[in-house]
Amino acid sequence: MPNPTAAMLVIGDEILSGRTRDANMHYLSGQLTDAGIDLREVRVVSDDPDAIVDAVKALSKTYETVFTSGGIGPTHDDITADCIAAAFGVSIDVRDDARALLEAHYERQGTQINEARLRMARIPDGAALIDNPVSVAPGFTLGNVHVMAGVPAVFQAMVATILPTLTGGAPLVSETYRINRGEGDIAGPLGALAQEHPDLSIGSYPFQKNGKFGSNIVIRGTDKAMVDAALSKLAIEFPE
Amino acid sequence: MPNPTAAMLVIGDEILSGRTRDANMHYLSGQLTDAGIDLREVRVVSDDPDAIVDAVKALSKTYETVFTSGGIGPTHDDITADCIAAAFGVSIDVRDDARALLEAHYERQGTQINEARLRMARIPDGAALIDNPVSVAPGFTLGNVHVMAGVPAVFQAMVATILPTLTGGAPLVSETYRINRGEGDIAGPLGALAQEHPDLSIGSYPFQKNGKFGSNIVIRGTDKAMVDAALSKLAIEFPE
Repeated sequence: MPNPTAAMLVIGDEILSGRTRDANMHYLSGQLTDAGIDLREVRVVSDDPDAIVDAVKALSKTYETVFTSGGIGPTHDDITADCIAAAFGVSIDVRDDARALLEAHYERQGTQINEARLRMARIPDGAALIDNPVSVAPGFTLGNVHVMAGVPAVFQAMVATILPTLTGGAPLVSETYRINRGEGDIAGPLGALAQEHPDLSIGSYPFQKNGKFGSNIVIRGTDKAMVDAALSKLAIEFPE
Repeated sequence: MPNPTAAMLVIGDEILSGRTRDANMHYLSGQLTDAGIDLREVRVVSDDPDAIVDAVKALSKTYETVFTSGGIGPTHDDITADCIAAAFGVSIDVRDDARALLEAHYERQGTQINEARLRMARIPDGAALIDNPVSVAPGFTLGNVHVMAGVPAVFQAMVATILPTLTGGAPLVSETYRINRGEGDIAGPLGALAQEHPDLSIGSYPFQKNGKFGSNIVIRGTDKAMVDAALSKLAIEFPE
């Protein structure tokens, strides 16, 4: 059975302007690989309602699960929740369960809840809340879309909540073999190896170090014995 | 006049599996911001022909300029050039100008050019070569799509070649003001400031340091006087 498919949508002008270097994509991709879920596509869009709505519609139709990061805070540029509601054609308002979480949190802190903070309790109709153990304001799941914060510590905590609820496929086994020769020297035998093993993904990632060319060959598959067999062939063809 | 728009397409299983952390997106986004070109969207897709062709078609139709990274080496998983040709409906084969570059390079190195290395001379009909001062194998421009290598040193060298040929808009002026209060405290006045300045982009990027909440407010625009005026208002409202 093929692994479940997933996509990620990163929302935020700060990534596209180069001001912030996104960390959530790299984190999520590693977590999904470990869980046996195939991350097939990532899109990064700006804080623009049409761009967000279009991307949510396209990704949630094409892939089994979609994860979003960013745009669920209290400020005017946090428009993700409203855009998700629009993409699914449901209404959105401050919801009592989310408001109760925030009120309890701010009461403990001795802070007033205000109109801005209440924005974080805007949850689309029919969504289930995602717990935020870091800073309380919840994420939510609507349909096959999990909506999470952009702040990496919060994003990671939300991923930890969501992942066990998803049915992963077989986790991917991945082995890397380093060959200290340029890709042009090894591409022929490597292509033949890939053809012999259609069930494996065999990738070549060139590097250049101290003026010398080399390649890391990564063999991935769900069957460890098959990955190891291909690795052995590679090691015989290109001894260290 | 609005700034020119751009999109980026990152091609490679290694990014989506979490094995490699992409560096080119962050690099390109900073370079484009400095050049006054608006990066509006980034997509990351796997080494899958349909995914690459569909993304190239969608992005090249929607944005003025598209940059791709990855998949132009000599190995079997380097399929970008063929996919670009398919997206534009043109034919592709080993081209004499690209072959001559590679032959001269390998002759200097005393290495044989072989079938795998010749893959790097496959250039779609009508494309213009992009110089590769690092490892010779060229990128190319076809229509509004610039096709570049994924290895960061090569990617950066190719961006340096391409950027001066593009007509940028007014470079974006960006000022950051740090407020040591949580977003919920400042979101109201910040939203009002954003409404007063529709020509500016005012973003709020929360952080948490040593258990305290704060926000970096980033004001961006092409008119420095306008950016400075908004910054002054903000500093009066939230003195340090």
